[in-house]
Amino acid sequence: MSLTKFSLIPKPRTIACIGRNYAGHIKELSNERPKEPFYFLKPATSILNPGQGPILAPRGADLHYEIELAMIMGRTVDEIQPSEEALDAVKGYCVGIDMTARNWHQTARRKGLPWSLVKGFKTFLPVSHFIPKNKIPDPHNVRLHLEVNGELRQDDNTSLMLFGIPRILQHISGVFALEEDDLVLTGTPKGVGSVVPGDVITAGLSVDGIVLEEGRIEAKVEERAGGYSRL
Amino acid sequence: MSLTKFSLIPKPRTIACIGRNYAGHIKELSNERPKEPFYFLKPATSILNPGQGPILAPRGADLHYEIELAMIMGRTVDEIQPSEEALDAVKGYCVGIDMTARNWHQTARRKGLPWSLVKGFKTFLPVSHFIPKNKIPDPHNVRLHLEVNGELRQDDNTSLMLFGIPRILQHISGVFALEEDDLVLTGTPKGVGSVVPGDVITAGLSVDGIVLEEGRIEAKVEERAGGYSRL
Ligand SMILES: [Mg+2]
Ligand SMILES: [Mg+2]
Ligand SMILES: [Mg+2]
Repeated sequence: MSLTKFSLIPKPRTIACIGRNYAGHIKELSNERPKEPFYFLKPATSILNPGQGPILAPRGADLHYEIELAMIMGRTVDEIQPSEEALDAVKGYCVGIDMTARNWHQTARRKGLPWSLVKGFKTFLPVSHFIPKNKIPDPHNVRLHLEVNGELRQDDNTSLMLFGIPRILQHISGVFALEEDDLVLTGTPKGVGSVVPGDVITAGLSVDGIVLEEGRIEAKVEERAGGYSRL
Repeated sequence: MSLTKFSLIPKPRTIACIGRNYAGHIKELSNERPKEPFYFLKPATSILNPGQGPILAPRGADLHYEIELAMIMGRTVDEIQPSEEALDAVKGYCVGIDMTARNWHQTARRKGLPWSLVKGFKTFLPVSHFIPKNKIPDPHNVRLHLEVNGELRQDDNTSLMLFGIPRILQHISGVFALEEDDLVLTGTPKGVGSVVPGDVITAGLSVDGIVLEEGRIEAKVEERAGGYSRL
Protein backbone atom coordinates (compact mmCIF):
# COMPACT_ATOMS: atom_id res chain seq x y z
CA MET A 1 0.00 0.00 0.00
CA SER A 2 1.39 3.40 -0.93
CA LEU A 3 1.80 5.85 1.94
CA THR A 4 1.13 8.86 -0.27
CA LYS A 5 -2.60 8.76 0.35
CA PHE A 6 -2.08 9.73 3.98
CA SER A 7 -1.69 13.28 5.30
CA LEU A 8 1.22 14.73 7.24
CA ILE A 9 0.29 15.95 10.70
CA PRO A 10 -0.35 19.71 10.82
CA LYS A 11 2.70 21.64 12.06
CA PRO A 12 2.22 22.31 15.76
CA ARG A 13 3.27 25.37 17.70
CA THR A 14 3.69 23.62 21.05
CA ILE A 15 4.70 20.01 21.65
CA ALA A 16 4.23 18.78 25.23
CA CYS A 17 5.51 15.34 26.21
CA ILE A 18 4.45 13.49 29.35
CA GLY A 19 7.23 11.65 31.20
CA ARG A 20 7.05 8.46 33.30
CA ASN A 21 3.53 7.41 32.41
CA TYR A 22 4.03 3.62 32.33
CA ALA A 23 5.09 1.63 35.41
CA GLY A 24 7.35 -0.68 33.36
CA HIS A 25 9.32 2.25 31.97
CA ILE A 26 9.64 3.93 35.38
CA LYS A 27 11.09 0.68 36.72
CA GLU A 28 13.59 0.13 33.90
CA LEU A 29 15.09 3.62 34.47
CA SER A 30 14.90 3.28 38.29
CA ASN A 31 12.77 6.41 38.51
CA GLU A 32 10.26 7.56 41.09
CA ARG A 33 6.57 7.23 40.23
CA PRO A 34 5.14 10.76 39.85
CA LYS A 35 2.23 11.88 42.05
CA GLU A 36 0.93 14.06 39.25
CA PRO A 37 1.66 14.13 35.50
CA PHE A 38 4.73 16.08 34.38
CA TYR A 39 5.76 17.20 30.92
CA PHE A 40 8.56 18.80 28.94
CA LEU A 41 8.47 20.64 25.62
CA LYS A 42 10.06 19.84 22.26
CA PRO A 43 10.52 22.46 19.53
CA ALA A 44 8.42 22.11 16.35
CA THR A 45 11.59 21.79 14.28
CA SER A 46 12.48 18.55 16.07
CA ILE A 47 9.73 16.84 14.03
CA LEU A 48 10.78 14.35 11.37
CA ASN A 49 7.90 13.62 9.01
CA PRO A 50 7.58 10.35 7.07
CA GLY A 51 10.04 10.19 4.18
CA GLN A 52 11.89 13.29 5.36
CA GLY A 53 15.22 11.52 5.96
CA PRO A 54 17.21 9.86 8.70
CA ILE A 55 17.20 10.41 12.44
CA LEU A 56 20.41 12.36 13.12
CA ALA A 57 22.49 11.22 16.09
CA PRO A 58 24.49 14.08 17.66
CA ARG A 59 28.14 13.16 18.15
CA GLY A 60 28.70 11.87 21.67
CA ALA A 61 25.03 11.16 22.38
CA ASP A 62 23.68 7.81 23.60
CA LEU A 63 20.56 7.95 21.47
CA HIS A 64 17.42 6.27 22.89
CA TYR A 65 14.04 5.64 21.24
CA GLU A 66 10.70 5.96 23.12
CA ILE A 67 7.54 5.10 21.21
CA GLU A 68 4.48 7.09 22.27
CA LEU A 69 0.90 7.74 21.26
CA ALA A 70 0.48 11.43 20.38
CA MET A 71 -2.70 13.50 20.36
CA ILE A 72 -3.33 16.31 17.90
CA MET A 73 -5.45 19.04 19.43
CA GLY A 74 -8.56 20.13 17.55
CA ARG A 75 -9.16 23.39 19.41
CA THR A 76 -7.90 25.62 22.20
CA VAL A 77 -8.15 24.07 25.65
CA ASP A 78 -7.61 26.21 28.72
CA GLU A 79 -8.17 24.74 32.19
CA ILE A 80 -10.17 21.78 30.91
CA GLN A 81 -11.79 19.39 33.38
CA PRO A 82 -10.71 15.71 33.25
CA SER A 83 -14.09 14.49 32.06
CA GLU A 84 -14.84 12.21 29.16
CA GLU A 85 -15.47 15.34 27.07
CA ALA A 86 -11.77 16.22 27.28
CA LEU A 87 -11.34 13.85 24.35
CA ASP A 88 -13.65 16.04 22.27
CA ALA A 89 -10.78 18.53 22.05
CA VAL A 90 -8.61 15.96 20.24
CA LYS A 91 -8.99 15.77 16.44
CA GLY A 92 -6.59 12.98 15.66
CA TYR A 93 -3.52 11.03 16.61
CA CYS A 94 -0.11 10.00 15.38
CA VAL A 95 2.67 7.74 16.52
CA GLY A 96 5.73 9.66 17.74
CA ILE A 97 9.18 8.56 18.84
CA ASP A 98 10.51 10.71 21.67
CA MET A 99 14.23 10.45 20.82
CA THR A 100 16.42 11.23 23.80
CA ALA A 101 20.17 11.75 24.34
CA ARG A 102 20.13 9.49 27.40
CA ASN A 103 23.68 10.11 28.65
CA TRP A 104 23.19 13.90 28.54
CA HIS A 105 19.72 13.41 30.02
CA GLN A 106 21.19 11.71 33.09
CA THR A 107 23.72 14.56 33.44
CA ALA A 108 21.00 17.21 33.14
CA ARG A 109 18.89 15.44 35.77
CA ARG A 110 21.83 15.15 38.16
CA LYS A 111 22.66 18.85 37.73
CA GLY A 112 19.02 19.97 37.90
CA LEU A 113 19.22 21.46 34.39
CA PRO A 114 16.38 21.68 31.81
CA TRP A 115 15.56 18.68 29.62
CA SER A 116 15.13 20.91 26.58
CA LEU A 117 18.47 20.16 24.92
CA VAL A 118 18.54 16.38 25.47
CA LYS A 119 14.99 15.97 24.12
CA GLY A 120 15.00 18.70 21.49
CA PHE A 121 17.52 18.02 18.74
CA LYS A 122 16.63 18.25 15.07
CA THR A 123 14.93 14.94 13.99
CA PHE A 124 14.34 13.92 17.64
CA LEU A 125 10.60 13.55 16.99
CA PRO A 126 9.92 11.12 14.14
CA VAL A 127 6.16 10.99 13.60
CA SER A 128 3.77 8.92 11.52
CA HIS A 129 1.13 10.29 9.22
CA PHE A 130 -2.05 11.80 10.64
CA ILE A 131 -4.44 9.20 12.07
CA PRO A 132 -8.07 10.37 11.87
CA LYS A 133 -9.84 10.20 15.21
CA ASN A 134 -12.41 7.64 14.07
CA LYS A 135 -9.65 5.09 13.42
CA ILE A 136 -8.92 4.99 17.18
CA PRO A 137 -12.24 4.55 18.99
CA ASP A 138 -10.45 4.13 22.35
CA PRO A 139 -6.98 5.73 22.73
CA HIS A 140 -6.59 3.86 26.02
CA ASN A 141 -6.66 0.56 24.16
CA VAL A 142 -4.03 0.76 21.44
CA ARG A 143 -1.04 -1.51 21.03
CA LEU A 144 2.23 0.35 20.42
CA HIS A 145 5.19 -1.50 18.93
CA LEU A 146 8.74 -0.55 17.96
CA GLU A 147 11.47 -2.59 16.31
CA VAL A 148 15.19 -1.97 15.79
CA ASN A 149 16.54 -3.73 12.69
CA GLY A 150 13.40 -5.85 12.70
CA GLU A 151 13.77 -6.98 16.32
CA LEU A 152 10.84 -6.16 18.62
CA ARG A 153 11.89 -3.83 21.46
CA GLN A 154 8.68 -2.17 22.67
CA ASP A 155 5.24 -3.78 22.61
CA ASP A 156 2.61 -2.64 25.09
CA ASN A 157 -0.93 -1.40 25.29
CA THR A 158 -1.86 2.20 26.13
CA SER A 159 -4.21 0.75 28.75
CA LEU A 160 -1.07 0.68 30.92
CA MET A 161 -0.83 4.49 31.07
CA LEU A 162 -0.74 5.71 34.68
CA PHE A 163 -2.45 9.00 33.85
CA GLY A 164 -5.11 8.79 31.15
CA ILE A 165 -5.68 11.36 28.45
CA PRO A 166 -8.35 13.44 30.28
CA ARG A 167 -6.04 13.81 33.30
CA ILE A 168 -3.08 14.70 31.05
CA LEU A 169 -5.10 17.39 29.28
CA GLN A 170 -6.33 18.75 32.60
CA HIS A 171 -2.76 18.99 33.90
CA ILE A 172 -1.21 20.71 30.90
CA SER A 173 -4.16 23.04 30.21
CA GLY A 174 -4.12 24.02 33.88
CA VAL A 175 -0.66 25.45 33.24
CA PHE A 176 -1.00 26.99 29.77
CA ALA A 177 -3.53 26.89 26.94
CA LEU A 178 -3.09 24.26 24.25
CA GLU A 179 -4.12 25.37 20.77
CA GLU A 180 -5.32 23.69 17.60
CA ASP A 181 -2.64 21.46 16.03
CA ASP A 182 -0.57 21.35 19.23
CA LEU A 183 0.84 17.90 19.88
CA VAL A 184 0.73 16.01 23.19
CA LEU A 185 2.81 12.86 23.67
CA THR A 186 1.54 10.48 26.34
CA GLY A 187 4.69 8.69 27.57
CA THR A 188 6.48 5.51 26.60
CA PRO A 189 6.04 1.91 27.76
CA LYS A 190 8.99 -0.27 28.81
CA GLY A 191 11.71 -1.42 26.42
CA VAL A 192 13.56 1.82 25.64
CA GLY A 193 17.17 1.45 24.55
CA SER A 194 20.01 2.68 22.38
CA VAL A 195 20.34 2.94 18.63
CA VAL A 196 23.49 3.69 16.64
CA PRO A 197 24.17 4.96 13.11
CA GLY A 198 23.12 2.33 10.60
CA ASP A 199 20.21 1.04 12.70
CA VAL A 200 16.71 1.16 11.24
CA ILE A 201 13.78 1.89 13.53
CA THR A 202 10.27 0.79 12.60
CA ALA A 203 7.27 1.53 14.76
CA GLY A 204 3.52 1.68 14.69
CA LEU A 205 0.29 0.89 16.40
CA SER A 206 -2.59 -1.54 16.11
CA VAL A 207 -6.22 -1.36 17.10
CA ASP A 208 -8.06 -4.63 17.79
CA GLY A 209 -5.13 -6.51 16.29
CA ILE A 210 -5.14 -4.52 13.03
CA VAL A 211 -2.06 -2.41 12.21
CA LEU A 212 -3.00 1.10 11.01
CA GLU A 213 -0.96 1.97 7.93
CA GLU A 214 -1.13 5.71 8.74
CA GLY A 215 0.62 5.00 12.04
CA ARG A 216 3.74 3.50 10.51
CA ILE A 217 7.20 5.01 11.06
CA GLU A 218 10.39 3.81 9.40
CA ALA A 219 13.61 5.76 9.80
CA LYS A 220 17.30 5.05 9.62
CA VAL A 221 19.75 6.46 12.15
CA GLU A 222 22.73 8.41 10.82
CA GLU A 223 25.44 10.43 12.52
CA ARG A 224 24.78 14.17 12.41
CA ALA A 225 27.68 15.87 10.64
CA GLY A 226 27.45 19.31 12.25
CA GLY A 227 25.77 21.06 15.13
CA TYR A 228 26.12 20.56 18.86
CA SER A 229 28.34 17.81 20.22
CA ARG A 230 29.82 16.91 23.59
CA LEU A 231 32.64 14.41 23.14
CA MET B 1 2.70 59.29 24.12
CA SER B 2 0.11 56.69 23.12
CA LEU B 3 1.32 53.10 22.87
CA THR B 4 -1.10 52.26 20.09
CA LYS B 5 1.35 53.27 17.38
CA PHE B 6 3.58 50.35 18.25
CA SER B 7 3.23 46.79 16.95
CA LEU B 8 2.77 43.61 18.94
CA ILE B 9 5.54 41.07 18.46
CA PRO B 10 4.67 38.39 15.90
CA LYS B 11 3.42 35.20 17.56
CA PRO B 12 6.35 32.79 17.79
CA ARG B 13 6.27 29.04 17.43
CA THR B 14 9.31 28.36 19.63
CA ILE B 15 10.51 30.42 22.61
CA ALA B 16 13.99 29.53 23.87
CA CYS B 17 15.31 31.13 27.05
CA ILE B 18 18.96 31.16 28.08
CA GLY B 19 19.65 30.55 31.78
CA ARG B 20 22.49 31.85 33.97
CA ASN B 21 23.93 34.35 31.55
CA TYR B 22 24.92 37.09 34.03
CA ALA B 23 27.50 36.53 36.78
CA GLY B 24 25.55 38.63 39.30
CA HIS B 25 22.42 36.50 38.87
CA ILE B 26 24.36 33.23 39.09
CA LYS B 27 25.81 34.45 42.38
CA GLU B 28 22.50 35.56 43.91
CA LEU B 29 20.97 32.09 43.31
CA SER B 30 24.20 30.29 44.38
CA ASN B 31 24.39 28.53 41.01
CA GLU B 32 27.29 27.09 39.08
CA ARG B 33 28.61 29.11 36.12
CA PRO B 34 27.83 27.15 32.93
CA LYS B 35 30.66 26.08 30.61
CA GLU B 36 28.34 26.44 27.61
CA PRO B 37 25.00 28.21 27.17
CA PHE B 38 21.88 26.29 28.21
CA TYR B 39 18.24 27.01 27.47
CA PHE B 40 14.71 25.94 28.26
CA LEU B 41 11.49 26.42 26.27
CA LYS B 42 8.32 28.33 27.09
CA PRO B 43 5.01 27.71 25.27
CA ALA B 44 3.71 30.47 22.96
CA THR B 45 0.57 30.76 25.07
CA SER B 46 2.64 31.92 28.06
CA ILE B 47 3.04 35.29 26.28
CA LEU B 48 1.26 38.30 27.80
CA ASN B 49 1.13 41.16 25.31
CA PRO B 50 0.89 44.83 26.35
CA GLY B 51 -2.58 45.69 27.60
CA GLN B 52 -3.67 42.05 27.66
CA GLY B 53 -4.26 41.91 31.42
CA PRO B 54 -2.55 40.96 34.65
CA ILE B 55 0.20 38.46 35.35
CA LEU B 56 -1.57 35.51 36.95
CA ALA B 57 0.10 34.00 40.02
CA PRO B 58 -0.67 30.29 40.41
CA ARG B 59 -1.83 29.43 43.95
CA GLY B 60 1.11 28.26 46.04
CA ALA B 61 3.79 29.67 43.72
CA ASP B 62 6.58 31.99 44.87
CA LEU B 63 6.45 34.15 41.75
CA HIS B 64 9.75 35.71 40.59
CA TYR B 65 10.41 38.27 37.84
CA GLU B 66 13.46 38.13 35.55
CA ILE B 67 13.87 40.94 33.02
CA GLU B 68 15.57 39.90 29.78
CA LEU B 69 16.38 41.21 26.33
CA ALA B 70 14.63 39.06 23.71
CA MET B 71 15.53 38.62 20.05
CA ILE B 72 12.93 38.07 17.34
CA MET B 73 14.29 35.89 14.54
CA GLY B 74 14.03 37.18 10.99
CA ARG B 75 14.66 33.90 9.20
CA THR B 76 15.44 30.22 9.71
CA VAL B 77 18.82 29.54 11.30
CA ASP B 78 20.22 26.04 11.34
CA GLU B 79 23.74 25.41 12.65
CA ILE B 80 24.78 29.06 12.37
CA GLN B 81 28.39 30.05 13.07
CA PRO B 82 29.02 32.51 15.93
CA SER B 83 30.20 35.28 13.62
CA GLU B 84 29.09 38.88 13.54
CA GLU B 85 26.68 37.90 10.75
CA ALA B 86 24.66 35.83 13.23
CA LEU B 87 22.95 39.11 14.12
CA ASP B 88 21.73 39.40 10.51
CA ALA B 89 19.24 36.65 11.33
CA VAL B 90 17.60 38.86 13.99
CA LYS B 91 14.86 41.23 12.79
CA GLY B 92 13.97 42.96 16.01
CA TYR B 93 13.83 42.85 19.78
CA CYS B 94 11.48 43.13 22.69
CA VAL B 95 11.75 43.23 26.45
CA GLY B 96 10.50 40.06 28.13
CA ILE B 97 9.98 39.08 31.75
CA ASP B 98 10.78 35.42 32.36
CA MET B 99 8.31 34.81 35.20
CA THR B 100 9.27 31.80 37.29
CA ALA B 101 7.60 29.81 40.09
CA ARG B 102 10.80 29.83 42.15
CA ASN B 103 9.76 27.44 44.92
CA TRP B 104 8.61 24.82 42.42
CA HIS B 105 11.73 25.56 40.33
CA GLN B 106 13.98 24.63 43.25
CA THR B 107 11.99 21.41 43.76
CA ALA B 108 12.21 20.51 40.06
CA ARG B 109 15.97 21.12 40.10
CA ARG B 110 16.45 19.01 43.20
CA LYS B 111 14.41 16.15 41.69
CA GLY B 112 16.00 16.46 38.24
CA LEU B 113 12.63 17.21 36.62
CA PRO B 114 11.97 19.46 33.57
CA TRP B 115 11.70 23.22 34.02
CA SER B 116 8.76 23.38 31.63
CA LEU B 117 6.01 23.72 34.23
CA VAL B 118 7.71 26.24 36.54
CA LYS B 119 8.59 28.53 33.62
CA GLY B 120 5.59 27.94 31.39
CA PHE B 121 2.37 29.09 33.03
CA LYS B 122 -0.15 31.28 31.22
CA THR B 123 1.02 34.95 31.44
CA PHE B 124 4.55 33.90 32.52
CA LEU B 125 6.06 35.84 29.60
CA PRO B 126 4.99 39.49 29.66
CA VAL B 127 6.54 41.19 26.63
CA SER B 128 6.85 44.73 25.34
CA HIS B 129 5.90 45.90 21.88
CA PHE B 130 8.13 45.05 18.92
CA ILE B 131 11.37 47.06 18.86
CA PRO B 132 12.66 47.53 15.31
CA LYS B 133 16.25 46.41 14.88
CA ASN B 134 17.54 49.89 13.98
CA LYS B 135 16.53 51.22 17.40
CA ILE B 136 19.13 48.95 19.03
CA PRO B 137 22.40 49.41 17.14
CA ASP B 138 24.29 47.25 19.68
CA PRO B 139 22.26 44.64 21.62
CA HIS B 140 25.30 44.08 23.84
CA ASN B 141 25.01 47.64 25.12
CA VAL B 142 21.45 48.09 26.36
CA ARG B 143 20.37 48.99 29.86
CA LEU B 144 17.60 46.81 31.26
CA HIS B 145 15.56 48.01 34.20
CA LEU B 146 12.65 46.61 36.23
CA GLU B 147 10.67 48.13 39.08
CA VAL B 148 8.15 46.68 41.53
CA ASN B 149 5.63 49.25 42.75
CA GLY B 150 7.97 51.93 41.44
CA GLU B 151 11.03 50.64 43.33
CA LEU B 152 14.04 49.76 41.18
CA ARG B 153 14.94 46.05 41.45
CA GLN B 154 16.96 45.23 38.33
CA ASP B 155 19.22 47.66 36.51
CA ASP B 156 22.13 46.35 34.45
CA ASN B 157 23.66 46.51 31.02
CA THR B 158 23.54 43.66 28.51
CA SER B 159 27.32 44.10 28.16
CA LEU B 160 27.46 41.87 31.27
CA MET B 161 26.13 38.81 29.38
CA LEU B 162 28.50 35.86 29.74
CA PHE B 163 27.58 34.43 26.33
CA GLY B 164 26.90 36.99 23.63
CA ILE B 165 24.15 36.75 21.03
CA PRO B 166 26.22 35.09 18.26
CA ARG B 167 27.32 32.34 20.69
CA ILE B 168 23.73 31.88 21.93
CA LEU B 169 22.43 31.53 18.37
CA GLN B 170 25.21 29.08 17.52
CA HIS B 171 24.33 26.96 20.53
CA ILE B 172 20.57 26.78 20.01
CA SER B 173 20.72 26.41 16.22
CA GLY B 174 23.27 23.63 16.67
CA VAL B 175 20.51 21.71 18.45
CA PHE B 176 17.40 22.59 16.39
CA ALA B 177 16.50 25.10 13.70
CA LEU B 178 15.08 28.43 14.80
CA GLU B 179 12.47 29.89 12.43
CA GLU B 180 11.17 33.34 11.58
CA ASP B 181 9.32 34.97 14.53
CA ASP B 182 10.83 32.56 17.07
CA LEU B 183 11.82 34.33 20.27
CA VAL B 184 15.14 33.95 22.11
CA LEU B 185 15.53 35.35 25.63
CA THR B 186 19.09 36.10 26.66
CA GLY B 187 19.10 35.69 30.45
CA THR B 188 18.52 38.00 33.39
CA PRO B 189 20.90 40.23 35.34
CA LYS B 190 20.96 40.27 39.15
CA GLY B 191 18.11 41.51 41.31
CA VAL B 192 15.42 38.89 40.75
CA GLY B 193 12.85 38.52 43.50
CA SER B 194 9.27 37.82 44.48
CA VAL B 195 6.05 39.59 43.61
CA VAL B 196 2.62 39.04 45.15
CA PRO B 197 -0.94 39.79 44.03
CA GLY B 198 -1.48 43.55 43.99
CA ASP B 199 2.11 44.37 42.98
CA VAL B 200 2.71 46.31 39.78
CA ILE B 201 5.76 45.47 37.67
CA THR B 202 7.18 48.04 35.28
CA ALA B 203 10.16 47.32 33.07
CA GLY B 204 11.96 48.55 30.01
CA LEU B 205 15.25 49.30 28.34
CA SER B 206 17.32 52.29 27.37
CA VAL B 207 19.89 52.86 24.66
CA ASP B 208 22.50 55.59 25.22
CA GLY B 209 20.48 56.83 28.17
CA ILE B 210 17.22 57.14 26.19
CA VAL B 211 14.28 54.94 27.22
CA LEU B 212 12.60 53.29 24.20
CA GLU B 213 8.82 53.62 24.51
CA GLU B 214 8.28 50.42 22.51
CA GLY B 215 10.22 48.51 25.17
CA ARG B 216 7.94 49.41 28.04
CA ILE B 217 6.08 46.79 30.09
CA GLU B 218 3.56 47.50 32.83
CA ALA B 219 1.56 44.69 34.39
CA LYS B 220 -0.21 44.06 37.64
CA VAL B 221 0.03 40.74 39.46
CA GLU B 222 -3.22 38.97 40.36
CA GLU B 223 -3.95 35.57 41.82
CA ARG B 224 -4.99 33.01 39.21
CA ALA B 225 -8.45 31.72 40.05
CA GLY B 226 -8.25 28.30 38.39
CA GLY B 227 -5.72 25.97 36.87
CA TYR B 228 -2.80 24.14 38.42
CA SER B 229 -1.90 24.70 42.05
CA ARG B 230 0.30 22.99 44.62
CA LEU B 231 -0.65 24.16 48.08
MG1 LIG C 1 12.78 21.56 30.42
MG1 LIG D 1 9.09 10.09 26.41
MG1 LIG E 1 15.46 33.75 32.85
